[in-house]
Amino acid sequence: MNQTQPKPTKQASKAGPKDAPKAQAKQAAITSRAEDYAQWYIDVVRKAELADHSGVRGCMVIRPNGYAIWEKMQRELDDRFKATGHVNAYFPMFIPLSYLTKEEQHAAGFAKECAVVTHHRLKTIDGVVQVDPDSKLEEPLVIRPTSETVIWHQYKKWIESYRDLPILINQWANVCRWEMRTRLFLRTTEFLWQEGHTAHATEAEAREETQRMLEVYADFAENVMAVPVIQGHKTPGERFAGAIDTLSIEAMMQDGKALQAGTSHYLGQNFAKSADVQFLNQSGQLEYVYATSWGVSTRLVGALIMTHSDDIGLVCPPKLAPIQVVIVPIFRNDAERDLVLPEAKAVQKDLIGRGISVKLDDRDHLNPGAKYYEWELKGVPLRIEIGPKDIEKQSLCVVRRFVLSTPGEDEASLRQKKKQFFPRAEALAKVPELLSQMQRELFERAKALREEKSRVIDSIADFEAYFKTEGAGFAWVHWAGDAEQEEEMARRFETSVRCIPLDNQIPEAARGAGTCILTGKPSAQRVIMARAY
Amino acid sequence: MNQTQPKPTKQASKAGPKDAPKAQAKQAAITSRAEDYAQWYIDVVRKAELADHSGVRGCMVIRPNGYAIWEKMQRELDDRFKATGHVNAYFPMFIPLSYLTKEEQHAAGFAKECAVVTHHRLKTIDGVVQVDPDSKLEEPLVIRPTSETVIWHQYKKWIESYRDLPILINQWANVCRWEMRTRLFLRTTEFLWQEGHTAHATEAEAREETQRMLEVYADFAENVMAVPVIQGHKTPGERFAGAIDTLSIEAMMQDGKALQAGTSHYLGQNFAKSADVQFLNQSGQLEYVYATSWGVSTRLVGALIMTHSDDIGLVCPPKLAPIQVVIVPIFRNDAERDLVLPEAKAVQKDLIGRGISVKLDDRDHLNPGAKYYEWELKGVPLRIEIGPKDIEKQSLCVVRRFVLSTPGEDEASLRQKKKQFFPRAEALAKVPELLSQMQRELFERAKALREEKSRVIDSIADFEAYFKTEGAGFAWVHWAGDAEQEEEMARRFETSVRCIPLDNQIPEAARGAGTCILTGKPSAQRVIMARAY
Repeated sequence: MNQTQPKPTKQASKAGPKDAPKAQAKQAAITSRAEDYAQWYIDVVRKAELADHSGVRGCMVIRPNGYAIWEKMQRELDDRFKATGHVNAYFPMFIPLSYLTKEEQHAAGFAKECAVVTHHRLKTIDGVVQVDPDSKLEEPLVIRPTSETVIWHQYKKWIESYRDLPILINQWANVCRWEMRTRLFLRTTEFLWQEGHTAHATEAEAREETQRMLEVYADFAENVMAVPVIQGHKTPGERFAGAIDTLSIEAMMQDGKALQAGTSHYLGQNFAKSADVQFLNQSGQLEYVYATSWGVSTRLVGALIMTHSDDIGLVCPPKLAPIQVVIVPIFRNDAERDLVLPEAKAVQKDLIGRGISVKLDDRDHLNPGAKYYEWELKGVPLRIEIGPKDIEKQSLCVVRRFVLSTPGEDEASLRQKKKQFFPRAEALAKVPELLSQMQRELFERAKALREEKSRVIDSIADFEAYFKTEGAGFAWVHWAGDAEQEEEMARRFETSVRCIPLDNQIPEAARGAGTCILTGKPSAQRVIMARAY
Repeated sequence: MNQTQPKPTKQASKAGPKDAPKAQAKQAAITSRAEDYAQWYIDVVRKAELADHSGVRGCMVIRPNGYAIWEKMQRELDDRFKATGHVNAYFPMFIPLSYLTKEEQHAAGFAKECAVVTHHRLKTIDGVVQVDPDSKLEEPLVIRPTSETVIWHQYKKWIESYRDLPILINQWANVCRWEMRTRLFLRTTEFLWQEGHTAHATEAEAREETQRMLEVYADFAENVMAVPVIQGHKTPGERFAGAIDTLSIEAMMQDGKALQAGTSHYLGQNFAKSADVQFLNQSGQLEYVYATSWGVSTRLVGALIMTHSDDIGLVCPPKLAPIQVVIVPIFRNDAERDLVLPEAKAVQKDLIGRGISVKLDDRDHLNPGAKYYEWELKGVPLRIEIGPKDIEKQSLCVVRRFVLSTPGEDEASLRQKKKQFFPRAEALAKVPELLSQMQRELFERAKALREEKSRVIDSIADFEAYFKTEGAGFAWVHWAGDAEQEEEMARRFETSVRCIPLDNQIPEAARGAGTCILTGKPSAQRVIMARAY
């Protein structure tokens, strides 16, 4: 079996191309989720060539297959940002140390672990290239862990009156947080993200923006990534450093752990006060500007993988699949090749005309089985196989990467559902429908898993018992503890309050008031507690 | 007169919005090119709100108006990269110091002035946030000035045999070069760019790629940016550090100076040797991989501004204009407003349906004159004015930001050409045509200026005399000097060899062999010498 850019070992290559796939069968095998979930994730990321470790501590290389998914995410998000009135801009990656010290709470929360530039020149000294000690900067520069401070410094120059507001700016950028434990996509020292930074004349408008962008994220997660999410507020202890209110969307991975997939912050006047940004309001009074910020990152690629993939490899929702359909021509000799390839090209052209992204895998040195294996590993939603018999029968064989199974369904039945023959014209017309169906079913499956792994829990004993079970998920509990008591829960059970869900996010069975499972104090509504990435 | 987000001074604002435009007339005035070309450029960039100085030395903020142009450039370039088989990826911004020392020539050329990360933590000591001395990195990290070293380190892991080749990867990223003298867009410490890094099995294929990407750049510059360029080789002294051959496109700005707008390098096996990247070729032999790299940056936005803009402000070629048409409704009271706005919206809708990007400026607090001024300053190619009379006559007033003038043409005639009335339906149908015409005419004007400012020169005396004249441009001269003699020319005349043009780039009058203007040695063809940005 093989990978996109087939990499036979030097021995295998000498043995001849046809043998290479076999030689690689073992190399490409993925650890099963049941065996080792963490290793399974790394295997999928690396063997589907989504990302790779780099030679730089904690930094990853996003490979073309992974970056293509990120590009599709960017396009979908950027369209939504623009549709809600935002524009893009770019601010420097360097933050003078003094900026960070102005907003104390922010500095305390962020400025701890970050990359610091202290010099600006290298020099060859005694034949060795080294940092030139004479190039020390007067003021150290921090590589942005997030850009509030540098952006609000700029907004001070741009804002004078209410007529300059709102400012609705987004930035696509790299940021750096010096993480101790890193994991491909989910937590890396450098990562890519977008950060929205908006400035408003009133608190109401800023809060509305915070809510609007959370909804944009939720819509994107559910309708594009096929990842169900719960929208809610963070507890004070989990808030973004410097925020008055932090909203987030929380997803559940297949192992039951929560993953924070996006955040939207109402910052009040905190950053405006630190950077001294006042505006003349409609009544002619000077007032501090109200702020929001919101962001999602390449972490979403990790969330996508962990939500949908299986022991074969990546499963990618069709809306984000860089290749939606792969066509594999089947032939045993040149005559069959000459028959099959033109038909494969015609099918490709037809599907491209329907707005589908299609790859025709016409590589000669791999057999069809190796190609099937490779494209399943890489998560292409649909495969079309075309051989001489299909041409004779005027039919096409369409194979789905994923089908929804019913409880107790056996392998044979599943295989039959996955691989279907249709008359040629019907098959072509059916492709968009099958892609939509797969998009919908992936969401349904993820949602069903989340429901299966959610519990309404009313005592600390039940809570403890639940989190002793393998693959425990979301616990809906009453909570009235403070930051210290949250830390106690973290120590005892490795859980945290993921969010205080918005009203419309609470399922029927979890509604109503009650008493805190730890403190016994009254609680107006349940929160979600879970282990998290 | 006014700007997009009108920023009345606090006094002006109190005096009432209608007065604000007047109060700002002076503020928005742009220094004329004749008066001070360098100041004119800064004025256009800042007053059209394309970019701003930041609080960080040498770093700029790219404002939404400027970033929107860069986004359009990115889209056009990215489409061309993909059409020529390239894919995007992302590599870390940090380069371990040791990587840079491996390719000696590269390190010598690049590693001098760069940002160096030496620590990874801040700490509050005696109440002051400062760099934690205990967080010193074992190995300093350089912020990428370009990514050859970090990418080839990775390619070593990915390349084993000829089947893994070619690798055709591009990256959109920020880079950092610690520049002493910076200028908005043209030269900044941090800038945005794309860098292509390809790996090939043969020298011929790599050289072909180098040439192909130069052509992609030239096509983009001429057909999208409307900037005529000359394609050629750099002299050895001007080559990219580590390259065997550097190709570039050279443009001429309105002041006659050259601007290098893009480069494409054939790197031979230099980087493969430094990173030890060998592959098994088709004959089963190990061989070093052949490389290319190529890049363009946000500098192109500077080139665009300097090529087309005038004393009124930005002139943007329609293909890159974020807003191609602005509609300004004209009314004096609510009744007229109610009549005019629906028609303005109908016109907007019609034009959007024709694939045009249209802004309807329905702000109430600015008078039409202020709006005209603002959108001309910001370079919107076409303006449509709609007032009650136009509705009565079923006509539209279309005003072009730019028309080609004929020699000796007077102001009145130009104004008449710019502002035209058409019957409504004709006007709507004419908009795409006028935009295409403007795109074409901008290129023609720039090309005519380049020809006007180009000289075939055959002696050092004539050369000296030419470069004593104000606004001297390109000198086509025979040259056989070495790097030292190039430096002599730089010292004496502040000129450099911009390129050794490709055969098909040489005008009739400059063809043929001759003798070097400095050394008298034989020269096979002329080169372009000029002053440069």
